Amino acid sequence: MKEHFSEQLEDLRRQLILMGGEVERQIHRAIESLTEMDAEKARAVIAADEEIDRMEMGIEEGAISLLALQQPVAVDLRFLVAVLKINSDLERIGDHAVNIAEGAERLAGQRPFKPFIDIPYMADVAMSMLKQSLDAFVNRDADLARRVIKKDDILDEKNVSIIRELLTYIAEYPALTTYCIELISISKNLERVGDLATNICEDTIFIAEARWVKHHATEIGRP
Amino acid sequence: MKEHFSEQLEDLRRQLILMGGEVERQIHRAIESLTEMDAEKARAVIAADEEIDRMEMGIEEGAISLLALQQPVAVDLRFLVAVLKINSDLERIGDHAVNIAEGAERLAGQRPFKPFIDIPYMADVAMSMLKQSLDAFVNRDADLARRVIKKDDILDEKNVSIIRELLTYIAEYPALTTYCIELISISKNLERVGDLATNICEDTIFIAEARWVKHHATEIGRP
Repeated sequence: MKEHFSEQLEDLRRQLILMGGEVERQIHRAIESLTEMDAEKARAVIAADEEIDRMEMGIEEGAISLLALQQPVAVDLRFLVAVLKINSDLERIGDHAVNIAEGAERLAGQRPFKPFIDIPYMADVAMSMLKQSLDAFVNRDADLARRVIKKDDILDEKNVSIIRELLTYIAEYPALTTYCIELISISKNLERVGDLATNICEDTIFIAEARWVKHHATEIGRP
Repeated sequence: MKEHFSEQLEDLRRQLILMGGEVERQIHRAIESLTEMDAEKARAVIAADEEIDRMEMGIEEGAISLLALQQPVAVDLRFLVAVLKINSDLERIGDHAVNIAEGAERLAGQRPFKPFIDIPYMADVAMSMLKQSLDAFVNRDADLARRVIKKDDILDEKNVSIIRELLTYIAEYPALTTYCIELISISKNLERVGDLATNICEDTIFIAEARWVKHHATEIGRP
């Protein structure tokens, strides 16, 4: 029975990684739909969110079943609670990909007034944070999780500088207002992806070290 | 032991309601700090978020302890998983209150160019959705939860109309750009509060009827 249980946990972990990969691709495609002004690709991202939602439901059901049937304690219980939380974080990242794609769809008819550089860069940082946060979780690698959390500063700073720059464009060229506000919203969505990857890292450190780093509060030792 | 367990569940429920009330007050005070141009009140909201975070950690710890020690099944297990999810939703609503207060702090030095009407109205809708979603959860009232979910349309529509209106202001008075963008961000934060209250309602309906309404997908019967 116990061996069977560890296989079930492994299966859940695999599902979570699959979902993570799919969510990462959603962010990637959403940014492509923006830079390529491809409304059809944007709509494909929006449509594919249903699959992410189905994956989330499957993982939640799986985790609840294991809680009910296996009555895990200690490490395995913490692991399952972390799976439930990360599952919900991934689904939210998927929603941010949809938000970005919706913006890209609205902008697809207009030529960008300057090449996209900062937003694809932010997206690369966000996607690598997401990927590494899941690697850290799977390998219970608290050091990697800490390094990923540090990267979040890059996104926060880039977001502020993008907003500042776009505001100067609006001030000079009011005709660009709607366009710039869409880009500000996309930038904020990418910044939120970084926050959610940070959540995953915090749960990972907690699992790996049984300590609490959430909210960057003083770390409290745990039994 | 079983009676003790039901007291512990009751205690957790009480903590969740307390936290809900505190989060609701945070939204209320954040909007007040905006309409009263009160930077100090805004900073108080930002500072009080630490207390919300502490409440979240306490509830999460309590739920995990009960899962470990009581090994609940069926209804009680579902309830505890819902507590974990709602706990996280409430903490996120608290973060939106902080976002609003940060905007209010930045705007506190400037006189508003027109009276605040729509944003306080949105805040009222969001706060009543939050309050009622928790009432619905506590009383396992699926009908109330469904009515609350319908209210979310009000927030979505108001958010769109506020953004549209503010964009016309920016186009006509570029000097108002920064101010208007702060208001757009506040409006989006309130719209997100509605989404999170909707999450709470979906979990409530699921608990009350053991059916799945999440993502507005086709309802799937559950054992």
